[in-house]
Amino acid sequence: MAASNERIREVVESYVSLVGDGTAAEIVDLFAEGATLEDPVGSAVRTTREELLEFYGMLEGLQQESRLVECRIAGSEAAFHFELRTITDGGTFTLGPIDVMRFDDDARITSMRAFWSDEDMTIS
Amino acid sequence: MAASNERIREVVESYVSLVGDGTAAEIVDLFAEGATLEDPVGSAVRTTREELLEFYGMLEGLQQESRLVECRIAGSEAAFHFELRTITDGGTFTLGPIDVMRFDDDARITSMRAFWSDEDMTIS
Repeated sequence: MAASNERIREVVESYVSLVGDGTAAEIVDLFAEGATLEDPVGSAVRTTREELLEFYGMLEGLQQESRLVECRIAGSEAAFHFELRTITDGGTFTLGPIDVMRFDDDARITSMRAFWSDEDMTIS
Repeated sequence: MAASNERIREVVESYVSLVGDGTAAEIVDLFAEGATLEDPVGSAVRTTREELLEFYGMLEGLQQESRLVECRIAGSEAAFHFELRTITDGGTFTLGPIDVMRFDDDARITSMRAFWSDEDMTIS
């Protein structure tokens, strides 16, 4: 049976929260085996757990805050707008991607595609 | 050559504006031949110009206002959050889908997928 919208929303909320202050392993545990990741859309698709761990490992150690802005769920997929603020000595970098995720029946992420470009990054 | 982000953004803005107060033919003219439409995600995919005209024809004659809230563009695709308000004698119905579109080199829409569910409709 397909995962419920409620369960999918919980996973999206966990994902956004963990991108802010979780470990790479905690984030990757939300993904199904064989999941694919394209971030940003148009870049090379990551396909292995090692590649996913490497990708999210880049966030570890950074001082970050994240929040979910809007989330829409339909047909075992979700599209959501979230904001990720990275606080550095040189200023605060804010990126607000729109991510699209597919989920399996256990609400594990089977694919993630992130829509953003350099134009969407602001510095304050 | 792939359509520029600027051109894609113009088409998204035209689309949102026309969904508010355009004709079905004006909206469908933004699509490439053979384009597909899945609205909402998980429903049957519409594949012919006739089906697209029928779909957008449902909006004609309604009193509507639309606005683009957020738009992200990457790799000749766009994900955008917009708001569509339909004003009736029974109240104002507001729906705020997140749409995902692909574009050809001429910035014509080759596929559209709309993320929303009944839960995302508000009445005021």
